[in-house]
Amino acid sequence: MGRTPKKLTVAFQGELGAFSEVAARQLCGPDAGLVPCQRFLDVFERVSSGKARAAVIPIENTLHGSIHENYDNLLQNKLTIVGETQVRIVHNLIAAPGVGFKKVRRVFSHPVALNQCLSFFAANPEVEKAPFYDTAGSVKMLMEERLPDAAAIASSVAAARYGARILKRGIEDDHQNFTRFFLLVKEAGARKQLAAADQEGWKTSLVFTTKNQPGAIFRALGAFALRDLSLTKIESRPLRGKPWEYLFYLDFLGDAREASAKNAIAHLAELADFHRVLGCYPRGV
Amino acid sequence: MGRTPKKLTVAFQGELGAFSEVAARQLCGPDAGLVPCQRFLDVFERVSSGKARAAVIPIENTLHGSIHENYDNLLQNKLTIVGETQVRIVHNLIAAPGVGFKKVRRVFSHPVALNQCLSFFAANPEVEKAPFYDTAGSVKMLMEERLPDAAAIASSVAAARYGARILKRGIEDDHQNFTRFFLLVKEAGARKQLAAADQEGWKTSLVFTTKNQPGAIFRALGAFALRDLSLTKIESRPLRGKPWEYLFYLDFLGDAREASAKNAIAHLAELADFHRVLGCYPRGV
Repeated sequence: MGRTPKKLTVAFQGELGAFSEVAARQLCGPDAGLVPCQRFLDVFERVSSGKARAAVIPIENTLHGSIHENYDNLLQNKLTIVGETQVRIVHNLIAAPGVGFKKVRRVFSHPVALNQCLSFFAANPEVEKAPFYDTAGSVKMLMEERLPDAAAIASSVAAARYGARILKRGIEDDHQNFTRFFLLVKEAGARKQLAAADQEGWKTSLVFTTKNQPGAIFRALGAFALRDLSLTKIESRPLRGKPWEYLFYLDFLGDAREASAKNAIAHLAELADFHRVLGCYPRGV
Repeated sequence: MGRTPKKLTVAFQGELGAFSEVAARQLCGPDAGLVPCQRFLDVFERVSSGKARAAVIPIENTLHGSIHENYDNLLQNKLTIVGETQVRIVHNLIAAPGVGFKKVRRVFSHPVALNQCLSFFAANPEVEKAPFYDTAGSVKMLMEERLPDAAAIASSVAAARYGARILKRGIEDDHQNFTRFFLLVKEAGARKQLAAADQEGWKTSLVFTTKNQPGAIFRALGAFALRDLSLTKIESRPLRGKPWEYLFYLDFLGDAREASAKNAIAHLAELADFHRVLGCYPRGV
């Protein structure tokens, strides 16, 4: 008998049905085992300790910006980015079977989701916003409590997961609402299995600090610009213990194993006080 | 009789005794009239509508990073930055007179403040963390309710303001905890009165978007680096309506009215799709 490959398990923050589950399915396929966690710290810990094989974390949203906590977590934990994907955030009004739209007086969801559906609430003044700790968690709660006058705002995956019904689809104010997610693993060996075979080229993510000198960040970016490597994201975070100095996180289009990207990183290393490649992965579409 | 100059009124977010009040006093002196507001949006609105003369807003903290909401507010409101200052965030344990440390079982404060005093809670396991909406507000509440077993974590200004006593000073985990604040006004005329006479040179803040081209951000920073103008901060925020494109906020050392800074801004204007100078102000110390 051949060995059965060990099942891929993926940790993510939130309840089953969260947008992170949607991202995990996009990145790891329908058969991956899901490990929902309460906090982002727990997600990183599960993979660091080997209890889960991979993690899926949100890193930025087109309306809200970066999830800075996860930039900090990437630095503090030695996981490797091996994939990225984006999920269009579609908010649906969801209720238990038998609860029609006319009965709805309260809508539960995460405060961020409630605030992304303001035109819905303006058009339906008899409906009250009820802040809850999680989008998918609010669907779970509705179904458990069988609330007769309540609905939730969450993903269609959450509705399917808990057997609830979608009353209205896509009630978010701004449809240009996307979240980008990273796939993380502990060991580089896991990479082969996870990385998609055909892709739109590669992306590399890294973090560095510059020497505290005029023009330092300009010269650091020159390592990439002078080699025609396109930056897709630059993010700064405070450097702990050095007030008003910063860590910079960069994403660029390029494969860290090929010459120009390799040379750019070596050039950056000459200029930087500290640098670390966080991962090189197929570009998400 | 000569005209009495109109009293300077300063809007800020939070209760009286908030760290923003400390910043307002540093920037506007002891005689300024204080206008506490519930939300940052209200602070901007008070100045835009002329109900307050100036606003003081936090823009970044050395442990938490930027206050992104206020970067977005700077773009959406046409106020001008005319000053900056920094406040060292010292967290004190504060109780009503007659409540000694041994009686304290609950400590109220904003969750961020509670999380910045974890070593205090680890050393005092009989004391419970009680999340509250505001640091200074928790002192106000303690005094109003005369809670016999409770304390708050807040500034010394909050203790003085509400007649409470400081039980322990400086219980924050990390003393490198500073917040930088901006002073904003509506009309440039207000600037003369507000800007300090002697300073450590000038700083200029601006926001821009680049054309979506490889090397665009490198070239934009070149406008400053090639004129030996030092950047002190770079921040990116998502550009609404254009997923995965960004606004960049820059601070640099220089006076926008002098030649090299003026030329740098004109050079940036050639490269940028959009740019706006947010203010030029004496550098805070």
